[in-house]
Amino acid sequence: METKTIKESPLFWPARLKGPVLWVLDETLIPQKLKYIKVRNTKEAVDVIRKMKTRAFGQFLVVMQTFLLEINNVGNGGTGRGPSLRLLNKIQKTAEALNNSRPTFPFAEVTSIVVRWARQAIEKKIDIRVFVTKSIEGYLAGIRVRRLERVRKIAALIKNGDSILTHCNVSGELAMAAYLCRQQNKQAHFFATETRPYFQGSKLTAWELQRMGADVTLVADNAVGSLMADKLINKVIVGSDRSCANGDFANKIGTYQIAVLAKEFGIPFYVLTQPSDKVKTGRDIPVEIRNPRELLTYLKRKVVSGVVSGFYPGFDVVPHELITKAIAIDVH
Amino acid sequence: METKTIKESPLFWPARLKGPVLWVLDETLIPQKLKYIKVRNTKEAVDVIRKMKTRAFGQFLVVMQTFLLEINNVGNGGTGRGPSLRLLNKIQKTAEALNNSRPTFPFAEVTSIVVRWARQAIEKKIDIRVFVTKSIEGYLAGIRVRRLERVRKIAALIKNGDSILTHCNVSGELAMAAYLCRQQNKQAHFFATETRPYFQGSKLTAWELQRMGADVTLVADNAVGSLMADKLINKVIVGSDRSCANGDFANKIGTYQIAVLAKEFGIPFYVLTQPSDKVKTGRDIPVEIRNPRELLTYLKRKVVSGVVSGFYPGFDVVPHELITKAIAIDVH
Repeated sequence: METKTIKESPLFWPARLKGPVLWVLDETLIPQKLKYIKVRNTKEAVDVIRKMKTRAFGQFLVVMQTFLLEINNVGNGGTGRGPSLRLLNKIQKTAEALNNSRPTFPFAEVTSIVVRWARQAIEKKIDIRVFVTKSIEGYLAGIRVRRLERVRKIAALIKNGDSILTHCNVSGELAMAAYLCRQQNKQAHFFATETRPYFQGSKLTAWELQRMGADVTLVADNAVGSLMADKLINKVIVGSDRSCANGDFANKIGTYQIAVLAKEFGIPFYVLTQPSDKVKTGRDIPVEIRNPRELLTYLKRKVVSGVVSGFYPGFDVVPHELITKAIAIDVH
Repeated sequence: METKTIKESPLFWPARLKGPVLWVLDETLIPQKLKYIKVRNTKEAVDVIRKMKTRAFGQFLVVMQTFLLEINNVGNGGTGRGPSLRLLNKIQKTAEALNNSRPTFPFAEVTSIVVRWARQAIEKKIDIRVFVTKSIEGYLAGIRVRRLERVRKIAALIKNGDSILTHCNVSGELAMAAYLCRQQNKQAHFFATETRPYFQGSKLTAWELQRMGADVTLVADNAVGSLMADKLINKVIVGSDRSCANGDFANKIGTYQIAVLAKEFGIPFYVLTQPSDKVKTGRDIPVEIRNPRELLTYLKRKVVSGVVSGFYPGFDVVPHELITKAIAIDVH
């Protein structure tokens, strides 16, 4: 029902299970192609995550649904103690493999929920297969509703005449909020940073905002300070990859300097978060250092000469002092 | 003689006149190729400037030497009043064409010097051809000496153990200073931003620093705040495209936000300038808005989908309050 009132962006729910296959939107091919990758098992799931075929919320969806794939792959071995323990073991191994796919996203926090359900089923002697499957499905349905609610909150935050800067991509929600604003006759302009090295802003954000009918302009990451100094931005809205108990959060590299600049210019800085108290402060978040190849080449062609080295932290951490307001969704 | 003691980077003096041809280093092909473009007249000079085949100091060299080309092209028509006035007219037309090539670099300030020499020759009834030629040659020789002096000043600024951030490219001087530091047994590390949209950092700065034996790491423009927060930078050294009477300067887009971040972290911010009092403050500098195609495509392939618009100011302005010290060279 909610999808009738809010037009949905492909990035809002980029992985869907159909029978024995999880179809994962290949975000690296956007905007040229809207193509879905077949994922049939944990190995293939880890692969799409590691190659950043999916990212942010997509990673979460892939992780959750990979358990459904594996439960399906194991086949119905019955409901006795033996088959149940074998399934628990399978779930634990799946969790472990997913946890080791990339460092910054809190995979272990997500997979531990599923492992807990599996253990509960065994303790309570209920059908582990049915219980875990229903739990995951119900959990995802709940998150879907709360994310749609958040889209409305973001739309409510946007006022007529706003000029909003965003960085990287917030998995459909901002674009859908932009769509809602248009429905509500609110004019807003969006500036999307290109978000080097991966160009998520150029490829995903500009594409989906435009697809949703929003007025969007792409700028270099280098232009943020200049736009702010020229009073062309009056709000910043970004997503987050990981939150801490104290309100600090990690997001795509570049978010931190945007937050510092926003503070310098007195521009409100909003972040969409998934609250978590597993990590105390931003200093405790492990920041993924990605392969510098992604910095040194583009479309498989070298940008630099032979032996130049690169340093590519994938994320940075924004301390809570720089946040005007966190728009939270509780995924736990 | 000075080139014996300081190894020279091709970017330090990227345009050289040989007979009737000005050979201009094609900076867009670096680091893949070290190729020089033939420039034989004003039209071709404007073309290499507009296409950013050359930039920064290279533009200045091309401008100055284009007058030598045109004086040569006119041929020796004698030294009487008629031929002298025709040559003055040619020089004025050359100046006008060059002034209109790109907005932010102060072409008119440079070309007006040559026009003044031409007028002086006519007033004093001396050979305009000889006087203007000798004046340009002497002027460039003087600048060469002062730039080499500045290379030594930059090297003196760099201390053992420094970790220096630079943005865009400073036409050889920083790389040559890095070379001098090595000669003086000073260890310094350089971080070069890639400098989107044109990748001058990836293509030029990383390449020439490495060529000069410096220890250089390439980072995304987005990583500056994060590097500073992690105390990985203790000095910033950048160039400038245009200076104002009050000390403000314009440089490649992104310089301004680096200056704001440096101030936030208490990191000294140094700029190499060509002082000028032609423009009062940074607000009076016309900032070139370049074709957004340069933002929307890379290696002729689109990064974004069909109709996304882009905004690409080529430069931004750093107010003098953010500058720790300007290392000046007077080119007038």
